Amino acid sequence: MDIRENIFEQWLELIENGELSRLKIELNQDNPANIAEFFDEIPVDMQLLVFRLLTKDNAADTFSFMDSDTQELIINSITDREVRRILYDLSLDDAVDFLSEIPANLVTRVLKNTDEEKRKLINQFLNYPDDSAGSIMTIEFVEFNQNTTVIKAMEQLKKTGVNKETIYSCYVLDERRVLVGIISLRTLILSGDDVHIKDIMENNVIFVKTLDDQEDIANLFKKYGLIALPVVDNEKRLVGIITVDDIVDVIEQENTEDIEKMSALIPSDDQYLKTGVFTLAKNRIAWLLILMISGTISSAIISGYEGVLASSIILSSFFPILMDTGGNAGSQSSTLIIRGMAVGEIGMSDVFKVIWKEIRVGLLAGSILGLVNFVRLVLLRTPLNVNITVSLSLIVAVVVAKSIGCLLPMAAKKLKFDPAIMAGPLITTIVDATSLIIFFNLAKAFVL
Amino acid sequence: MDIRENIFEQWLELIENGELSRLKIELNQDNPANIAEFFDEIPVDMQLLVFRLLTKDNAADTFSFMDSDTQELIINSITDREVRRILYDLSLDDAVDFLSEIPANLVTRVLKNTDEEKRKLINQFLNYPDDSAGSIMTIEFVEFNQNTTVIKAMEQLKKTGVNKETIYSCYVLDERRVLVGIISLRTLILSGDDVHIKDIMENNVIFVKTLDDQEDIANLFKKYGLIALPVVDNEKRLVGIITVDDIVDVIEQENTEDIEKMSALIPSDDQYLKTGVFTLAKNRIAWLLILMISGTISSAIISGYEGVLASSIILSSFFPILMDTGGNAGSQSSTLIIRGMAVGEIGMSDVFKVIWKEIRVGLLAGSILGLVNFVRLVLLRTPLNVNITVSLSLIVAVVVAKSIGCLLPMAAKKLKFDPAIMAGPLITTIVDATSLIIFFNLAKAFVL
Repeated sequence: MDIRENIFEQWLELIENGELSRLKIELNQDNPANIAEFFDEIPVDMQLLVFRLLTKDNAADTFSFMDSDTQELIINSITDREVRRILYDLSLDDAVDFLSEIPANLVTRVLKNTDEEKRKLINQFLNYPDDSAGSIMTIEFVEFNQNTTVIKAMEQLKKTGVNKETIYSCYVLDERRVLVGIISLRTLILSGDDVHIKDIMENNVIFVKTLDDQEDIANLFKKYGLIALPVVDNEKRLVGIITVDDIVDVIEQENTEDIEKMSALIPSDDQYLKTGVFTLAKNRIAWLLILMISGTISSAIISGYEGVLASSIILSSFFPILMDTGGNAGSQSSTLIIRGMAVGEIGMSDVFKVIWKEIRVGLLAGSILGLVNFVRLVLLRTPLNVNITVSLSLIVAVVVAKSIGCLLPMAAKKLKFDPAIMAGPLITTIVDATSLIIFFNLAKAFVL
Repeated sequence: MDIRENIFEQWLELIENGELSRLKIELNQDNPANIAEFFDEIPVDMQLLVFRLLTKDNAADTFSFMDSDTQELIINSITDREVRRILYDLSLDDAVDFLSEIPANLVTRVLKNTDEEKRKLINQFLNYPDDSAGSIMTIEFVEFNQNTTVIKAMEQLKKTGVNKETIYSCYVLDERRVLVGIISLRTLILSGDDVHIKDIMENNVIFVKTLDDQEDIANLFKKYGLIALPVVDNEKRLVGIITVDDIVDVIEQENTEDIEKMSALIPSDDQYLKTGVFTLAKNRIAWLLILMISGTISSAIISGYEGVLASSIILSSFFPILMDTGGNAGSQSSTLIIRGMAVGEIGMSDVFKVIWKEIRVGLLAGSILGLVNFVRLVLLRTPLNVNITVSLSLIVAVVVAKSIGCLLPMAAKKLKFDPAIMAGPLITTIVDATSLIIFFNLAKAFVL
């Protein structure tokens, strides 16, 4: 990190001193991902100048790593000829990513500067729904006819392979372009020249369809340790491939989404620092409102037991400990279950095993908490009957919280909701009400 | 998923009916990851029988996909000769993974059945700390001397490449085994036969050291879209490579760890269903205790304002709404900031931008919540002075919660703690106390 910043400082100095030819050499020796990062540091009015220092090869690569704001600025400032060149070098999935983020008038200008074949493809790709296989696939793959020989395949590879995003897995098609097999470059190299592809290819191909969900696809990559995965249409004709580097992004995105849902946020793909105050507030207010309104139930419970409270006002001072402990105990369980289901460790058939486990964990953890609390309240000289009420409530509340915490995410899944919404905040609200009822009823028995 | 279960059903029937030769054919046509999954369904006393149906190639691959319990059971039951054969076929990183999970006496038996060279390597690998580059790297890589030509390199590849985990990136070393460059199989294929490797290799190599942290390494993969990454020792000599499929696991593991920390759990790599009740309780009790004890502060605050409460018992019925809303608002902010820092979108230099943003979001969201609450309490005919107290408290509490929620994770990072511990539960406890103080002081002004 610090080394990077030092290099950026030096480059910025080169810009200030007008030593652009030295900057050009240094820039083009570095990695496009780093160059793209550098653009965040350059004053806006210098970005175009610096971009034009990049070699043809580096320009498109660097462009693909930039955030959409910088991309927009560059495209806005360069000539049609430059637009054409960048679009020509950009791989299709990067082009589609970029076009789906910029304003419509710019899209029109860019598409005008694209050859017809690519324009048709781009339009087709832009139409795939978000989060579908189609939206993350690319067409830069290598294909062979099943009747080709190894030596012809290698020739074909040398002729056409340069622009392909990955040539390590090659796809074997029949005459109707139906995917019939897959062959790794490794097998190709290690096989005799005159062998037919169909005799050495792997027949048992794992593939997905264009509308399949990206989360399921990420799970396939994880399960089989894949580097690329073919995408087919309804007739099993090959239309694209998905590569593992895009899947890494999908995994991060899906994790962020889950984490946000678990914290009562409406998930968003936008970067925090680039999101406006209104959008941020909008993504938060819905759940805050729902949870506040549901909190009315707890209020009603407390009001309902006003008589109990009136006779011992001290009881209300234990609300925070009781509610927070219950909430925390419940969200611990729901988190483990939600995560376990997300990574495929826990299935619906495990429901009884899970509940039985949580009840025992709840009893154990609850008893320890109850005991510590008992000692604490003895030291604080709290009246014994109040102490017993609070400590017993804690034990029962923890057991109940653990049970609710594991049951609700599984129930949500059964009802085809996302289990992640049954996390901390909602569990807390439900557990609050339950804990208070337990507490007041024990109080009636011991304190009144 | 359902198709899989159907196939497993059929296979189980084949076992029951003793049609093992048919099972053998079907099994060996499937993917090792699927075969390994099938072992979870087989009765324990039949597992060895089924394992012996696998071809030599499939046996080691399937073994590497099994969970450690099944691996242990298999190793316990097979002959020394079979152990030797599996170990020979297993890639080094899979062997090390497996050995680090099984009991010591079994490790001894396995190592006794390994040739000396591999045994030395395994021992060396077992000594790398958890979560370090060394612990996830493998030695199955292809290396060339920098003075080799393309045609010689390809010959070398054909001779030795078969057992290598990945041959798509090849590493170029000088005489002292120092890493000087990297060359993709793609470049190799597309270059003339007599060109020297050092003239076409990429000099600007991204590499890591054996003790580097796996989370930082995962970030490198994400930033540069890598498929493999070389690992060097302190003299920059190549000792291994890390491949992207292992990084996918690292990313999931780090995400699980963050999510668990954010829910007041002590992170654990163990699978939920395979973890005992005592361990589960142990991983949860520490934070529950800490948070319960800190809850004492809230109790003390309430006790301190007993006078206020005594004059209007109804006030205590608003504790849940106030505390939960504050807690939720705070954990929304802390989640966004923690996640933003984890994926590198938010840095320490953004602290003022973040606070200013959160204060405005807090004012906006808080005002809406306060307004809705005001209307709600008007409808419920709550006395106006109590209504004003509660609604105003909500607004102030949300703004304070948002500020604390964004500040504490950044403070934790500054102090070199993991920001993830500053999530929901701890924020809630801190926000509770603050909200109560605000509430009671407003109550003093409006209600008394």
